[in-house]
Amino acid sequence: MQNSYFQSIEKLPSESLLPINEVLDQLAFNDQGLIPVISQDFISKDVLMMAWMNRTAIDKTLDTGKMTYWSRSRNKFWVKGDTSGHFQDLISMSIDCDGDVILCQVKQTGAACHTGRKNCFYLSVDTNTNKITIIGDAQYNS
Amino acid sequence: MQNSYFQSIEKLPSESLLPINEVLDQLAFNDQGLIPVISQDFISKDVLMMAWMNRTAIDKTLDTGKMTYWSRSRNKFWVKGDTSGHFQDLISMSIDCDGDVILCQVKQTGAACHTGRKNCFYLSVDTNTNKITIIGDAQYNS
Repeated sequence: MQNSYFQSIEKLPSESLLPINEVLDQLAFNDQGLIPVISQDFISKDVLMMAWMNRTAIDKTLDTGKMTYWSRSRNKFWVKGDTSGHFQDLISMSIDCDGDVILCQVKQTGAACHTGRKNCFYLSVDTNTNKITIIGDAQYNS
Repeated sequence: MQNSYFQSIEKLPSESLLPINEVLDQLAFNDQGLIPVISQDFISKDVLMMAWMNRTAIDKTLDTGKMTYWSRSRNKFWVKGDTSGHFQDLISMSIDCDGDVILCQVKQTGAACHTGRKNCFYLSVDTNTNKITIIGDAQYNS
């Protein structure tokens, strides 16, 4: 979606610097105050998952270096790995041209997916056969 | 968000096959009938952008092999590249464990970002300096 603040900065030359809070204050949070956050393994470049943050979750993630989402099902902050031990350490964060998506490079400990698969995108569409293939077996921690 | 259909299939063994429409019919579209779609360059593995599809846009993308989003600002289908020439050819599509995010590997022609930058995530957060750096110069087609 177009956002006048992000439109106003898009022609700034490379290496221009902006105050972090000026930009974060203009993010296009949805009507629940959330923004989608993509996490990508900083080594393999695999996309691991997408989840949601509110402004406070962004601040917590930046302050602690641990990816901290807002759980929509549990309605509370969710430090990824707090239960499973599968933490995501923040390596770098970037914001898109419309200010409505965040991309984080992370160091993933263990599996990103709650099923124990390395990442969450294990349902592969095969348009030749009109089938969807499950990639990898679930592995739950005992 | 938890989705009982996707929970029911998560323990199926690797290489299990499911009918494509059975799975697509169970996707967790939001209250606007949309699902977030991440596009990733199939060679560089760079995350290019995130946009939205409805069920028809998914079908169009699978049928044509051209990434076809739903534009929330223009309220219509948006074949990426139809205006700019910067098409995204679909290489593969996968769905996440909760059925609420789609990831596509694409062959990107030209720039993915409307600013002419290679991808949309050109605002880089530097937590050491509390600044955000613009990466790359905008380049608009004449």
